[in-house]
Amino acid sequence: MHIYLSKIVNLPTAKRLPAYLYILQQLKKNGQKHVSSSHLAGKMNIEPILVRKDIEAIQVSGTPRIGYSVENLINTIESYFEWNQTQHAILFGVGELGVAILGNQELANLGLRIVAAFDSDPRKVNKFIHGVMVFDLLYLHEIIEDFKVNIAILCFPSGMVQCLVDELVSAGVTGVWSFSSQNLTIPDSVVTQKDDLTSGFVELCAKLRRNELVFRL
Amino acid sequence: MHIYLSKIVNLPTAKRLPAYLYILQQLKKNGQKHVSSSHLAGKMNIEPILVRKDIEAIQVSGTPRIGYSVENLINTIESYFEWNQTQHAILFGVGELGVAILGNQELANLGLRIVAAFDSDPRKVNKFIHGVMVFDLLYLHEIIEDFKVNIAILCFPSGMVQCLVDELVSAGVTGVWSFSSQNLTIPDSVVTQKDDLTSGFVELCAKLRRNELVFRL
Repeated sequence: MHIYLSKIVNLPTAKRLPAYLYILQQLKKNGQKHVSSSHLAGKMNIEPILVRKDIEAIQVSGTPRIGYSVENLINTIESYFEWNQTQHAILFGVGELGVAILGNQELANLGLRIVAAFDSDPRKVNKFIHGVMVFDLLYLHEIIEDFKVNIAILCFPSGMVQCLVDELVSAGVTGVWSFSSQNLTIPDSVVTQKDDLTSGFVELCAKLRRNELVFRL
Repeated sequence: MHIYLSKIVNLPTAKRLPAYLYILQQLKKNGQKHVSSSHLAGKMNIEPILVRKDIEAIQVSGTPRIGYSVENLINTIESYFEWNQTQHAILFGVGELGVAILGNQELANLGLRIVAAFDSDPRKVNKFIHGVMVFDLLYLHEIIEDFKVNIAILCFPSGMVQCLVDELVSAGVTGVWSFSSQNLTIPDSVVTQKDDLTSGFVELCAKLRRNELVFRL
């Protein structure tokens, strides 16, 4: 029980892990075996103490004057997220954003495998996009069951989002990644990640506004 | 000076403002003149006290038993972000994600006006995508100056990102919205918003992993 609990790292740390992974993979390519927290901190523009805390959270320890094993860090980060296993997902809405996600190689490298796409436009159904077949919603439950799908990616702006989500939850989906600006009601046992483009833009505007006001004073 | 300072709302509040705006615009369409904090809270799945704090932060006050003026809230949120003014931006990388952003109507509604796109692929240059012309990088400085561009949107995965950003900063861009997974070094006077798809997926995975571990205990 202790091992499981201590593996629940906090979200800010979790969000930094892929950046570490990217740097570590570059180091590995260059044949480097060890790395210091100050080197990682420099590359990430954060404090070395934060790097050491992050690495402590994923339970890797280093050797004084030598640093952390690059190989060991890569393996630990990958296995924490189960990126060495594939995650089966289905995608809804094959518009421009949907197509961009279907073709994103970085997501594929992290183990995301989109097994099927769905669209209400009959002209898109039964076609392949980036190697993924587009289905009619009729086949939803069958595909979720057959492919043991646990993630649903929502790439349409609004409309019947809540109805669809209720359907997905009842079919056993445990994670919903939504690019819709609509707010969703979802049970606690299911997790959501909301990444609609407007919220990114709004955050940028808020930072610009703060900067402007601060510089004006 | 007091007015400026007090208008610097914190980021969690800023991030909720577009959701309020969306709900308020629906209410306005239905002819509703006033709204209560508990109604807004219900729609957003948050506590009414949080709604009241958010509204206090943007300096709108309500009337007991009547609520807040829908019109007044809409105007205040829009003017806080200067969404009633347009923000001029340029976009780099007209791949699938770039095209999706060029065509996003919700961003346009928030006042984002992408005045030009850039791509290193000569087959894309001199074409229009969603009404936006694609240019060669040669014209970068000219366009930034002529259109008073302050936001740059980076939609290519990696490569020469840092070089481009240095160029943009020297040309006077004050905000960088990056969908690249690369970490950027940027002066304090320039703000960045990093929204690469992998970090959204990673956050979802981290939440799924936490949920799994919690339910397993």
